[in-house]
Amino acid sequence: MGESEFTSQQPVDVDTILEGLRSLSVDRINEIAREAHPGDVEVAFERLDDSDREEVMALLPAEVLSAWADYLPAADVEKRLETLPRTEQREVLESLSDDELVDLLQEMEEEDRPQYIELLGEEKRQVSEDLMRYPEETAGGRMTMAMATVRENLSVEEALRQLEAVRDEAEILSRIFVVDQDSRLLGKVRLRDLAFSDRKTPISELMDSDQISVSAMADQEEAAQMVARYDLMALPVIDEEGRVIGVITHDDALEILEEESTEDMERISGIGGYGELAYLQTSAVAHFKRRFGWIVALAFMALCSGFILHAFESILKSYYILALYLPMVVAAGGNTGAQSATMVIRAMSLGELDTREFWRVLWKEGRVGIMLGSLLGLCVFLQINFLLPSTFDTGTVSAFKVGLVVGFALMAQVLTSTLIGAGLPVAAKRINLDPAVVASPAITTLVDMSGSVIYFGLAGWLFG
Amino acid sequence: MGESEFTSQQPVDVDTILEGLRSLSVDRINEIAREAHPGDVEVAFERLDDSDREEVMALLPAEVLSAWADYLPAADVEKRLETLPRTEQREVLESLSDDELVDLLQEMEEEDRPQYIELLGEEKRQVSEDLMRYPEETAGGRMTMAMATVRENLSVEEALRQLEAVRDEAEILSRIFVVDQDSRLLGKVRLRDLAFSDRKTPISELMDSDQISVSAMADQEEAAQMVARYDLMALPVIDEEGRVIGVITHDDALEILEEESTEDMERISGIGGYGELAYLQTSAVAHFKRRFGWIVALAFMALCSGFILHAFESILKSYYILALYLPMVVAAGGNTGAQSATMVIRAMSLGELDTREFWRVLWKEGRVGIMLGSLLGLCVFLQINFLLPSTFDTGTVSAFKVGLVVGFALMAQVLTSTLIGAGLPVAAKRINLDPAVVASPAITTLVDMSGSVIYFGLAGWLFG
Repeated sequence: MGESEFTSQQPVDVDTILEGLRSLSVDRINEIAREAHPGDVEVAFERLDDSDREEVMALLPAEVLSAWADYLPAADVEKRLETLPRTEQREVLESLSDDELVDLLQEMEEEDRPQYIELLGEEKRQVSEDLMRYPEETAGGRMTMAMATVRENLSVEEALRQLEAVRDEAEILSRIFVVDQDSRLLGKVRLRDLAFSDRKTPISELMDSDQISVSAMADQEEAAQMVARYDLMALPVIDEEGRVIGVITHDDALEILEEESTEDMERISGIGGYGELAYLQTSAVAHFKRRFGWIVALAFMALCSGFILHAFESILKSYYILALYLPMVVAAGGNTGAQSATMVIRAMSLGELDTREFWRVLWKEGRVGIMLGSLLGLCVFLQINFLLPSTFDTGTVSAFKVGLVVGFALMAQVLTSTLIGAGLPVAAKRINLDPAVVASPAITTLVDMSGSVIYFGLAGWLFG
Repeated sequence: MGESEFTSQQPVDVDTILEGLRSLSVDRINEIAREAHPGDVEVAFERLDDSDREEVMALLPAEVLSAWADYLPAADVEKRLETLPRTEQREVLESLSDDELVDLLQEMEEEDRPQYIELLGEEKRQVSEDLMRYPEETAGGRMTMAMATVRENLSVEEALRQLEAVRDEAEILSRIFVVDQDSRLLGKVRLRDLAFSDRKTPISELMDSDQISVSAMADQEEAAQMVARYDLMALPVIDEEGRVIGVITHDDALEILEEESTEDMERISGIGGYGELAYLQTSAVAHFKRRFGWIVALAFMALCSGFILHAFESILKSYYILALYLPMVVAAGGNTGAQSATMVIRAMSLGELDTREFWRVLWKEGRVGIMLGSLLGLCVFLQINFLLPSTFDTGTVSAFKVGLVVGFALMAQVLTSTLIGAGLPVAAKRINLDPAVVASPAITTLVDMSGSVIYFGLAGWLFG
């Protein structure tokens, strides 16, 4: 990232920035750009409403847009860019880091891209065309090409001279990748090793033959997990021919993992799509669009529960007491199923678990389910036998028998739910679906149905 | 982290490592230690059962334990350490990075600590005592003291000479903090700026007066969010007197944010406590302990739903058709409430939202709730009027009237649930509770009750 007049490094209170932005004064905005870190500006923008944000964006001067572009939503930057004269468009595009530039280009309609690409200098144009070959969610689509590489046959002195030329461009200079004549990865050296070694030492003597790398076509999440697992500052990305073409840096990895966690959490609650914008930035209509799909689908699944109840109408009418405990049996299943699903989905996201562990997961959840189910079943059996107000009519059966039915049904329901909750996400991943997609809401609704069937099935059988 | 014979950097297949560990052969384990990156060993350990893990740990040679200790659960390392002779204990402790050493000491019973602390060299002892002053979840408790600082009145040459002495210890040498005579933070220089500048240049001319720092007593999550927000490689940590005493590095930040995401997801599903161990490493009993609290509490809340139904027994008996749609009304509330809660909790975790936005959140969720509720209400009204099988008895009222009741109840239920789902977590945070604690399960059970009341209340009023 370039160090212009407008990239100060002082933390400024978000409220002060917000106030300045809302004032819609270009002078105030210039002042903020001089004083505040763009990371704080990003937080302030996240608090702005849709309409406020549009107004502020519409009056951002080109220099300020350049300084902030890496930190603002790509769609907003593009919209502002369209309204600027060609020379200022060029200025903004040239100031972007290459991964952000590609984000921006990928955000645009395909037909709009050429007019922007032709504004770029030769070097940037080449870089962006190379990067655009890789889909957005891959390591190649996410990497930056602004890295430092040296050939293994150089001396420290020669290497330092080469590195000096890229000292301001390379995002990470502390990890320098050593390559052969075909750009194939041989290892890495640290800047500190160069700085503190005799100038005549050959690089090959200092280098660490570390060949951890990721393929450009690998999923960005895989790359980010490698950065985390090996505590890397930068992970080299290689193309099909084994050449080093870029790096995923530690801050990219952090961003990717945060995005993936958010996506998992949202999917677990039945929220669809991917939201680049922050919560308050997203309009109510956009929120609605991301949520209604599952809600409508689940409502119709829940309707089936109603029809299942209908099938057991006669039992329900004869033993009205059973209705009293139905919500509890159903809810206990939903809750335990959601717990199991969350544990398993998170463990898979963190790479702690893979699909080959299917039976071990079921075995573990089965035991947990039996413990939880027995505890709940026992509690409710005791409650029915000793604490139920005498005003409740248990019909023609004894409280003891009702307690047995409810207790056993609860146990069976909890066990089924933990198994479904843990098993479905693993099974989904086995057939290459995102495990989080089949999560909580689907599981809850499914076990609502299984719960009713278990409950009345057991009651029908025991009461004859 | 020290670079011993046992810290190789080649990625090795996790299955190969697992097989080696399970063989329980010390030779095989030594071989793994020479060949595999400890990050991969960590993943393999995550797949081991409790009993397997104990057996493997029990036979780890001291050198291997030293190489892997940073990557294994602190409790396991401590257990193995107890069984080693004093000289080997010392070797392991001295090899630990200082933040891991402190983790390990904090894991122990208080009375066991002194015997280990006295094994340490003067320097390590001082460092660990300094670090132990800060609670585990603070920036001070999580930082490392292995950082590089230089005084502002030095020249590049003098600074480089000083840095050379710590070149192998400092975890991050690419960001060097510049301090005054009282160790107060003045700014930072990058190693690249020193390496490529004239040796006579004073540091004060090269330095960037960046004073972003975090207090040692701040929550570790706050520190991690700053690293993410400002794209830092290392964030300086300062004590009460403003002295730089350590750094939070990019890999610490990533780890903290992953832990916090896991905690949020688990709390949203009603899983309590904090689990340092991976999913498969955790025994079924330990899983049970983390889950039963909420499950039992929620079961008794759900029992209340049953009693609410009982209160409306007469309506239910007269208009049996209402029972058919009850599960749908109840479930729609649970699902929309969980969605709202997830969106809001995640936004707060990411720092996109704070509690002062309470009314803006309710206003946004209110609109989303009205849209979702109207859509669902309309669907169910149409379904009842045009698609309900004629075998269902609507009693003495028209299908039109039943449709109205169910449709309006559904709308009211969805609106209430989005408001409760979004409002409760923000309100909890306002009184300094973790917003995720009051999340989904509590909300689901709460809206189960509100749903029944709304449904039968509306029915009772409309049907007289």
